[in-house]
Parts: sequence; C-alpha cells; structure tokens
Amino acid sequence: MASEPAEQFVKIISKPLKSKNPLVIVGFPGIGLVGNITCQHIIEELGMEYMGSIDSRYFPPLAVLFNGIVYLPVRIYEAAEKEVVIVISDIPIHPTASYDISKVLADWMLSINAKDIVSIAGIATTTGERRVFGGATRSELLEKIKDKTEIFQVGTISGISGSIMTECFLRGMPAVSLLGETPGPNPDPRAAVEVIKVLNDIFGLSIDTDKLLSQAEQIELELSKLAEQVRTTETPSLPRKEFPMYG
Amino acid sequence: MASEPAEQFVKIISKPLKSKNPLVIVGFPGIGLVGNITCQHIIEELGMEYMGSIDSRYFPPLAVLFNGIVYLPVRIYEAAEKEVVIVISDIPIHPTASYDISKVLADWMLSINAKDIVSIAGIATTTGERRVFGGATRSELLEKIKDKTEIFQVGTISGISGSIMTECFLRGMPAVSLLGETPGPNPDPRAAVEVIKVLNDIFGLSIDTDKLLSQAEQIELELSKLAEQVRTTETPSLPRKEFPMYG
Amino acid sequence: MASEPAEQFVKIISKPLKSKNPLVIVGFPGIGLVGNITCQHIIEELGMEYMGSIDSRYFPPLAVLFNGIVYLPVRIYEAAEKEVVIVISDIPIHPTASYDISKVLADWMLSINAKDIVSIAGIATTTGERRVFGGATRSELLEKIKDKTEIFQVGTISGISGSIMTECFLRGMPAVSLLGETPGPNPDPRAAVEVIKVLNDIFGLSIDTDKLLSQAEQIELELSKLAEQVRTTETPSLPRKEFPMYG
Amino acid sequence: MASEPAEQFVKIISKPLKSKNPLVIVGFPGIGLVGNITCQHIIEELGMEYMGSIDSRYFPPLAVLFNGIVYLPVRIYEAAEKEVVIVISDIPIHPTASYDISKVLADWMLSINAKDIVSIAGIATTTGERRVFGGATRSELLEKIKDKTEIFQVGTISGISGSIMTECFLRGMPAVSLLGETPGPNPDPRAAVEVIKVLNDIFGLSIDTDKLLSQAEQIELELSKLAEQVRTTETPSLPRKEFPMYG
Amino acid sequence: MASEPAEQFVKIISKPLKSKNPLVIVGFPGIGLVGNITCQHIIEELGMEYMGSIDSRYFPPLAVLFNGIVYLPVRIYEAAEKEVVIVISDIPIHPTASYDISKVLADWMLSINAKDIVSIAGIATTTGERRVFGGATRSELLEKIKDKTEIFQVGTISGISGSIMTECFLRGMPAVSLLGETPGPNPDPRAAVEVIKVLNDIFGLSIDTDKLLSQAEQIELELSKLAEQVRTTETPSLPRKEFPMYG
Repeated sequence: MASEPAEQFVKIISKPLKSKNPLVIVGFPGIGLVGNITCQHIIEELGMEYMGSIDSRYFPPLAVLFNGIVYLPVRIYEAAEKEVVIVISDIPIHPTASYDISKVLADWMLSINAKDIVSIAGIATTTGERRVFGGATRSELLEKIKDKTEIFQVGTISGISGSIMTECFLRGMPAVSLLGETPGPNPDPRAAVEVIKVLNDIFGLSIDTDKLLSQAEQIELELSKLAEQVRTTETPSLPRKEFPMYG
Repeated sequence: MASEPAEQFVKIISKPLKSKNPLVIVGFPGIGLVGNITCQHIIEELGMEYMGSIDSRYFPPLAVLFNGIVYLPVRIYEAAEKEVVIVISDIPIHPTASYDISKVLADWMLSINAKDIVSIAGIATTTGERRVFGGATRSELLEKIKDKTEIFQVGTISGISGSIMTECFLRGMPAVSLLGETPGPNPDPRAAVEVIKVLNDIFGLSIDTDKLLSQAEQIELELSKLAEQVRTTETPSLPRKEFPMYG
Repeated sequence: MASEPAEQFVKIISKPLKSKNPLVIVGFPGIGLVGNITCQHIIEELGMEYMGSIDSRYFPPLAVLFNGIVYLPVRIYEAAEKEVVIVISDIPIHPTASYDISKVLADWMLSINAKDIVSIAGIATTTGERRVFGGATRSELLEKIKDKTEIFQVGTISGISGSIMTECFLRGMPAVSLLGETPGPNPDPRAAVEVIKVLNDIFGLSIDTDKLLSQAEQIELELSKLAEQVRTTETPSLPRKEFPMYG
Repeated sequence: MASEPAEQFVKIISKPLKSKNPLVIVGFPGIGLVGNITCQHIIEELGMEYMGSIDSRYFPPLAVLFNGIVYLPVRIYEAAEKEVVIVISDIPIHPTASYDISKVLADWMLSINAKDIVSIAGIATTTGERRVFGGATRSELLEKIKDKTEIFQVGTISGISGSIMTECFLRGMPAVSLLGETPGPNPDPRAAVEVIKVLNDIFGLSIDTDKLLSQAEQIELELSKLAEQVRTTETPSLPRKEFPMYG
Repeated sequence: MASEPAEQFVKIISKPLKSKNPLVIVGFPGIGLVGNITCQHIIEELGMEYMGSIDSRYFPPLAVLFNGIVYLPVRIYEAAEKEVVIVISDIPIHPTASYDISKVLADWMLSINAKDIVSIAGIATTTGERRVFGGATRSELLEKIKDKTEIFQVGTISGISGSIMTECFLRGMPAVSLLGETPGPNPDPRAAVEVIKVLNDIFGLSIDTDKLLSQAEQIELELSKLAEQVRTTETPSLPRKEFPMYG
C-alpha cells in the first residue's frame, strides 16, 4: 500500500482543485474504450476545466495537441461547481505500470478528499445487450448501486481499472466500478451512453447523451487506432524472468 | 533468508488474526489446481472469514469480485475457533516472484505463531491413482505423516510450493508438503478430496468432501482457464541475461 | 518533473555559454530527418561554435569524427552574437530514453535562461506539400506563430520531440514545435528549407537556404543510413513486462 | 572483488564447520555432469554430513527431497575427520549468476580457512580418452598436480567453474581446476572415476570408485534430465541490451 | 563523466605500475581483431609483465589459461623500462558495457598518469589496402599523427573503441585512435602489422613485425572463433524497452 517507490515513477502535477469533496471519475482505455468515451463526453458536456496531468516514465514520449496547445496524454479536469473531477487517459496503460499508477492515484484521491470514486471500463459479452455491471469496495456502496446496475456477482476486472479498485479496497476508500457491456474491442459510444445514464442516476449528474449518440460513427472512426493499441497492450505476452538463471 | 528486499515487492495486509497458534494451509495454483481446490473447499466448509490480502507488484492488475465486492487475487482466511488459517491464490505465481513471496510469507507465518504449515500442490503421474505424497522440513514431522501419506522419497517440488518449503526448511519452521497425485494439468477435485482426507487425518479437521465430489464437473469447467494459465506460467521460457554482455 | 534520477543517466557537459537569453533550437533524428538537416544547416550557415555534448549511458558507444577530431553524437553549438543555441543529435533516441533526456534538457535550458525553445521534427502526410505545422506550450506563443505556420489543431507528436514539448509544458517554459511536412521516412532537405523559412520569419534569423537546396541530393544520400535507423527505432516493439509474473 | 552487492543475491546458510583447514571440492553441473557425479559419489563414500545450503534469488523455486526431507538444490557437506568439505549443486547455474555466486563462495571459503580448493568440471574432446586436465591459480600448485594431470596449457574454462577459478586467482587463493575429459554432454561416470583417482592421488583421499562404475548406467539414466538442462543453460542466448536505445 | 556507478560494475585490480608516464595502448576485439593481434604481438615482443585484470559482472564467466595458470579475459601488461602499458581483451565487449568500462578505464589511465593513450581497432573497407586511419581528441595530437596516418576526416567509430575515445575527449585526455584497414571480419594480422609500424613511427617503439607475418595463418586460425563472437556481439539486436508500457 506504501506509495513511495511508486512516486518515483508516477507524478501528478495539478493546479489546486476548487472542489471540496469531489466525485472522481476515472476512464482509461480498455475494451470498447468505454471509459474514455464516457469521460471525454462528460468533460465536453460539463465544460470541465483542464487542471493537470500525470507524468510518468511509464508513458510513451507523446505530446497531445488541442487547438495547437501541447498537453500530456493523461489529464485531470474539474467541474468545480458540480464537484466533479475526471481523470482521462489517451494511452493504454501497460499491466506493469498499473500497480504504481493506481497507488499514486489513490494517494492523490485521498489528498483531494474524494467523496466517491468511479472507475469506468468495458466488459465484453456476446449478448448484444448494453447493460452496465457494477461492483464496489464496500457493501454500503453496493446498496447504492444495486437497483441501478447489474451487480457483478463473480468475476474479475483486469487492467488498470481493476488495480484502481483493489487499491481503493486495500485502503478502505469508497469506489464503484461501472462496466459497460460491449460486444467487442471496437469503440462503443452506445456502451458509454448507458454508463452515463447510470452515472446520472446514481450521482444526479444530468448529463445529456444526445450528442454522443449522434456522433457515434465519427467517434468510432477517430478512436479506432487507440482501440487497436488497447488490443495490443492487453494481449498477454511471454513472461520474462527477472533472475532467469533456470531455463 | 533476509526478507527486507522482498518486502519491497510483496506486502501482507491483514486484520489481526484471532488464532493463537494456527495451522496455516497454503494453496497456490499448480498442476491439477490441487492447492486451490482444496483450500477453496475448506474455506467454504468451515465458513472461514476473509482477513486480508497479499499485495505485490509481481501480481497482474486484477480485481476479483464475489457478490459484487472487490477483493485481491491472493487472500487470507481464518476459522478462528478452529485455529485454521488459509492462504489461497487465484493467480499462478511466476518462478521469479516465488523467492520474495515465500520469504514474506515465512516472515508472516512466524509473526502469527503458526503451529504447523501445510503447503498443498499437485504431482503428475501416469498411474491413474490419487495417492497423497508427503514431505517435511523436519524428521519429527515425517513421523507424524508417514502412515497417512506416501513419503516422497527422492524428487523435487518446483514452483512456489517448493520455495515455501525450502524457506521454512532454512528457518527451521515446521512445514509439511502434501502433493495430490493427478494425471495431468486439468483441475482435479478428486485429488483435492484425497488431500483433504489426509488433512482430516493428520490435523483432525473433519471437513466434509461430499460437496466437492458432487460439484466436480462444475469446478473443472470453472477452473479450466486458470489451469491453462498455470500451464503457460510453468512452461520454461528462454533465459534472459541480466548483464548480457556476451553473446 | 523532478530530474534527479534522470541526471544519473544523462549529463550535459558544456563550456559556459556566452548568450544571455538564447533561442534554443533542438533537432533530433525523426521522420524525414527534418530536425537534423535543419539544425546542421543552421550550424554551418551561422558558423556556430561547438560548446559541449550530452553524455548518456542510453547512447550507443559511438565516436563521431570531424576533420579527425573525436566528438560525441549529441552536441551543443552556439552563435553567441546571434544568441542562438542548437542541440543536434546524430543518433535516434529510443522512446525509453526520451523521458530522462527531456528532463535534463529542460533543466539545462532553464539554467541558460533560454528565451524561446523550438523543437523541430517532421510530420508525414500524403499531400505532397511541404507545409510547416506549429504547436506551442502557451497561447501567447500560438499568437506569434499562427500566421506563419499551419496550427496543428488536433493530433500527437511522438518521440523525443514530443516529450521535450510536454516537459516544457509541465514547467511552463515557452516552447514551439515546428513540424515539417514530408511524404515519408527519407531525408527531406526540402522540408528543412521550409522550416528554416519559418524560423527566419518568426525569429528574424536571415538564414540562407540556397546551399541546402543545391546539396539536397548529397544530403539525402549521406543521411539515408540514419533515416533507416530512425525507422527501426520508431517501429513499435513488443512490450516487455518489468514484473512479468502473469503470462 | 568486493562481494557486498553479490551478498544481496546469494547467501550461504550453514552450521559452523568442524574442519580447521579443509579441502573444499566444488561440483556444479556442467558438461558430462563430471562435477556433480564426482561430488555426489564422494559425499556417499565418505558419509559426509549435510551442513548447509546456498540461498539465492538466482535459483529456481525448487525443493529437493531425500527420504521425505526438504533440502535446497545447492548444498554443503562436510567430512570433519577428513577435513573435506563439498559444495554440490543439483541445478545448472546461469552465466549471469556465476559472478555473484563465485564471489560469495570465495568469501565463504576464506572464512572457513580453506586449505585447498578444487573446482571440478568436464571438458569435451573427440579423443574417446578419459584424461584429467589440470590448471591452477598459482605456479606452486601446478607443481603439485603436474605429474598427476595433463596440464591445461592454453584454453578457457567457461561457466561457474571458470568464474570460481578467476575469483580465487584475483584473491590469491590456492585453487586447482580438474577437468574430466568426456566425449559429450551425457552424464559421464567414467570421467568422474578418473577425476576421483586424481583427487585420491593429489590429496590422499582413498575414495573407492567401484560403486560408481557398477552404477554407471543407472546414474546416466537418472541424470539425463539435468544434463539436458545444462545443455540448455549453456547454449548462448541472444544478448539483451540493458539500455537498448540504439537498434 | 562521473564514474561512481560504473565502478559498481567494473573494477581494475592491478599491482602498482612502475611506469611514471606510460603510453597506454588498448586493444579490444573488433573487426579483423586488429586491436587484439596488435596488442598480443607487442606484449610478446616486449616481453611485457602481467600486472592485473579488469573484473566485471558484464563479462562472461570465463577463465583463460596460459601454461596451466588461470587468468581473467581482460588483462593489463607493462613494459616498465619502455613505459608502455597494454590493456588487452580476449572477449568482445557488448555495447551496453562499453559505457561503464570506458569510464573506469579513463579513471584508471588518469590515476597512472598516462602520457598518451592509443585505442586500436579495425575499419572495414573494400579497397584491399591496409592503410591506417587516425583520429584524436585534440588538434595538437592530430599534428603528431597527420603525416603518419590517413586522417579520418568524417565518420564514426563504434563499439568500446569509440567510447574510450569519447570518454577521453570529454575529460580532455590525450588519446589517439588508430584504425587498421581490413577487408572484413576475419582476423587480419596484416592490418596489425601496419598499425604496429605506425606505432613505431609515432612513439619510437621499434617493435619487430616479422614473427607476426610469418605466423599470420596460424593466428587467423586460432582467432577465428573470437572473430565470430565479435560479429555476433556487434550485430544490432532488437531494442528492449526499459519501461515498455506502450506497444
């Protein structure tokens, strides 16, 4: 749980937030890019302000430009009046980096007095449905979401979305996992719409989803390359032995 | 034997146990998943209480959900009234990580005054039998098990099950290895049944095995993916040179 | 943002500069070698003086000889009377090294009171045009370049050129990215000519480009091997897991 | 020569020896398993006592069982009345680990006041003979062995057997290398017999070799898997770059 | 330029030299083995005395035997009356190790008050000639060699021979690079002869080269395996990412 070594590799560089007890929504690229699309849409709908970035040697050397201005690929936004903070990533996170990033993120979420934490990801099924599955780090949170999501009874959440949840669990932090059902790896704005509806329902956010639906095709096109990167990153690769003395 | 560097990579995060001198049973995924199936069944039969987890950057980013609540993949359970503690893992442990995990586990088992330690694993043979082989870190323990197991005369135990035994041997800790005979890599509830019978016999545990037998097919199905992961992890991979100056 | 660990791996060894508030132009090998060709030409045209080198264990063991004298592959030049400093590299920088090099470079650019920073790179398109795209770390800089470049509205800059920009952005340093449009990986002196024109235009440098055009074919030939190295370095390679415990 | 960092990775855990100035014989698996077979036979013939183990994160997670008792794969035995100590390994040592293991072994051999050190290995030739080649760290030792071995005039000893010799040479410790001639990688008890005869001759050990000859076939069978591992470990593998910045 | 971390991995273990301001000649295996053959011949012709070794975990576990005595593969020799010191290596140096070895060598050459440093290597051409190309770290040294070598106008020296030169350049140490022209990777005693002639010419060494020419065929045969190793080591291998988070 100690985050000192993690802080060597991952740093959060942010202006002071104005929110006192924000809801923090986290969206990293995963299957269907459900976390990204959801968070990007909320940032736009709420006109959230750019507050800072995560800087890490785990990340590729990459500048992201919006309107000619340079940003980092993992960013923090705030809607101060709504007490909503979003952490969004334009790059998939390698399994190895998830451990340190989750620890530093948890430290930071404690430091900003996060009231609730929501980690958004996708879950692949073959049903063709767009349900939203939910899990939590505490039973009182399950009570809060049980009528608004399908409770994820038994299973696993892998990747950084999973490690954020285990880190919050280890520290007793109140975190909810929302998993948008999606048929596969392609960007899935429809799954994001369903997740936003659940967010509206649980946290009273009133975020409109019309634009998301109308731009679905364009989003799918624009994000197809990132979805491909996610696929590559998550493909299990051969283990490497740190002390490979035995063949 | 020093565990300081190991503790950088592996941490045990647990509530205080109530047991004074518990029997500690350890089950990590190995051939036939004998350790897992045995431990999972004992946890259920004894209604053991979740006490804590092992947190390590050696582990994949993975949240495990039961009834919608998030847990870590390597967990500690206790049946306080029976003075039984179980360490169970849902993930196979890579050979490289075994060294550190065994050292941290041994530190912790000392700290909780473990009376006896049992490391459960499988052993592949072609006999079709389901014997239970036994080894120990001390000759007085061999006396205790010699009529209840087939003593493992000459051979090797590889993987984390082996390194837990060598670590206990180095520290003079009383540990027994129980190896359930199994024909191959598939999940083998029948081997687990035999191991539980031996545990009952040695430690007077009175654990019923009927449910395990009746659910055998379902267990085999549910655990087939984990068994496959074990196979992959244990496949020897090419050595990597830390200082690869000479080709 | 802290550069201490980076300084273990990357050191700048330079004579004291004479410039008080120099313009610093940085050119590392990337697509079309636009940064290199631009910087090499400016060094020659302004008769810039060799001031120092970057020394790093990230670099290959390589001595570069000019007129029989040994130099390092990443060098610093100064035209003191013009207050222009150039950092030029004869070796492509691996993505992994970019993080540390950018941090050490930013430290150093602060220490020499850099007035403006320009990171030059190429950008591949299929238009056949040779436009120069621009981005910046601050909006007032965008004002300065908006009529002289095509503002890079939305996109990414990868490699060390991108990480220099994000590092300057994190520290609030005034940096401009100039991206010379090029049809592909081959050395592209024509793209360099266009970038130099933009540099002349923004910073009043009056650098002649005639020689660059007349030597275009020779430059393309001489630098074809380096262009090939860039291609190899930038080819995404399979991820390696630092703690590869999970297959 | 400093062994501090080596001691982080390799530890010798042993009861105090009774010998005052022992002869130390070291046998690690190499070609023909000459070192192993020789040492194992001496341990049995002299009824040597188990004294301790080498513990290292370089080693695979592996428990070795004899008569149901758990041991580590690299072990120390003593025949106190004969002042003979043996270090024997059941696992091949990867080239990368040899450096640290040799340093820690040399420290320890100094600490137990080793009078003479003998490193036993095999040497492959196509002569069909079973000569024993000898080398030493000092010329007075050469005198001692020159009539009892074929002096190894010019050549190299690779693997841990070689690094033990260079480490002893660096520290001025008296070490002899005995290389049993063998036609190939298969376990070669006949080469071990010749090495034991030379040991008897030089150090007056009077070790009988009859049993070794009579059990030759069985030994070859039992050790064929270890011989195969040796082959794999010693196969040169592709270099990995620690700072792989240049492709 | 700091050598502290390098000294963790590379140590020079030597008796005190008798020379006050020696000429230091360095020969590591490279193309044509020009450095090795040159240095080995000078050691023999001058009857130089073995003084010490370089010990490094970067090196393979390897003992080198001459007349039955064990040595390390990288050695230091001195002809005290001639004030000549030679560093010769029997193993190719991996690019990754070159950085640390060069720093430690430069420290040591400073500590022994080296008057001049000569790094010898080969350079492949297709001319069939055996010219000797020269470079230097200072212009006054170029003056000294310009009539005796072909000045290497523009080009690169790769491998440890190059990194020794850049390290000397960074520290302002007087070093000359002599590159023997050779048609290819095979051991090339004829190139060594030409380099020795240039050494004689510049430093007044009067080393006879007749034996080298008469033994050319034998040398080529004996060193063919080492030449093959050089080829393998210098083959560019695929980059590995230290923080391979991005695929």
